[in-house]
Amino acid sequence: MCIHVHIKVIPLGVGTSISDYVAEAIRTLRELGYSPLVESGETAVEVKDLKEVGEIVKHVNEKLARMGVGRVLTFVSIDYRTDKARSVEDKISIVRSKLK
Amino acid sequence: MCIHVHIKVIPLGVGTSISDYVAEAIRTLRELGYSPLVESGETAVEVKDLKEVGEIVKHVNEKLARMGVGRVLTFVSIDYRTDKARSVEDKISIVRSKLK
Amino acid sequence: MCIHVHIKVIPLGVGTSISDYVAEAIRTLRELGYSPLVESGETAVEVKDLKEVGEIVKHVNEKLARMGVGRVLTFVSIDYRTDKARSVEDKISIVRSKLK
Amino acid sequence: MCIHVHIKVIPLGVGTSISDYVAEAIRTLRELGYSPLVESGETAVEVKDLKEVGEIVKHVNEKLARMGVGRVLTFVSIDYRTDKARSVEDKISIVRSKLK
Repeated sequence: MCIHVHIKVIPLGVGTSISDYVAEAIRTLRELGYSPLVESGETAVEVKDLKEVGEIVKHVNEKLARMGVGRVLTFVSIDYRTDKARSVEDKISIVRSKLK
Repeated sequence: MCIHVHIKVIPLGVGTSISDYVAEAIRTLRELGYSPLVESGETAVEVKDLKEVGEIVKHVNEKLARMGVGRVLTFVSIDYRTDKARSVEDKISIVRSKLK
Repeated sequence: MCIHVHIKVIPLGVGTSISDYVAEAIRTLRELGYSPLVESGETAVEVKDLKEVGEIVKHVNEKLARMGVGRVLTFVSIDYRTDKARSVEDKISIVRSKLK
Repeated sequence: MCIHVHIKVIPLGVGTSISDYVAEAIRTLRELGYSPLVESGETAVEVKDLKEVGEIVKHVNEKLARMGVGRVLTFVSIDYRTDKARSVEDKISIVRSKLK
């Protein structure tokens, strides 16, 4: 079993540069005990239980609201697999090995 | 304040027709007490607390796993707004009125 | 064969209310000859050829840029099916009939 | 000006393991002349004109259809920025530097 969560946050009303908020969201993931993989369009974490998705979304959004963001759009994609165990890193290395 | 959640589930390993699983996911949302708005590519619900996103994702995915789906991809988009209160229906009617 | 395209545009740097821009994007789809289905989180159109996705994205984004938007995020999901022909409306009615 | 495109393909009807198809999609991006950045949940490319999104989507989907996939779901996110020029790599390094 494995659960991979990819998350992307988009704060509205703070201008066109949003990296301060993206960095704060990733910092929040670390504070929650995750080891986020920072990628160019989203950030990946592995969770043990699907309920954690709620905790993650709540902490990240409420942190951004406390920073003064009036509206946050969050995109979460969840890969829930009961047939095999794969890490997020496995996923990249499997595809990369097939590209050789 | 308002929180809109749009959810799309994609079961893998069950063939190209997935509407039975999509219907079961929506039924699960109803069992959890929501009044889902069924749209062509995703389903919308309003939640009171961001933590509910975890409950939703957990119940829907575990229901599909019990139906025998070995891998489920879920796409969730969350619109968390502290500056205004809008229903999901408001969102459509505001855009539609501007189109006239 | 059928190709369904769902599109969602998010203009950055224009504040937290974006419905004027969403309406303009939908107006652009109409000008291109499509009959967009306006839903709560995205807008659906049917296309005949996948290349049209490029035309759509280009016209919508460049229209928003001309309105002064410095950064536009666009989310497009494409359902390309060669095994069956379904309209966007079919998709909703199939799921709804299973919910009864 | 810069345009970043993130793409994720999900073939349906081929079982729960889809990495062969993901690899083929990335190979197609290379054949089209792009230098894709392979990440854990999606692949990033930079384009010069938004129309290229149509070419990319068409070539990738039609390649998968020729491999026998009856239905392909594609998720594309486009970051169209006229206010600044940033590479995909810049995006990651800006966020990472803020995390230190």
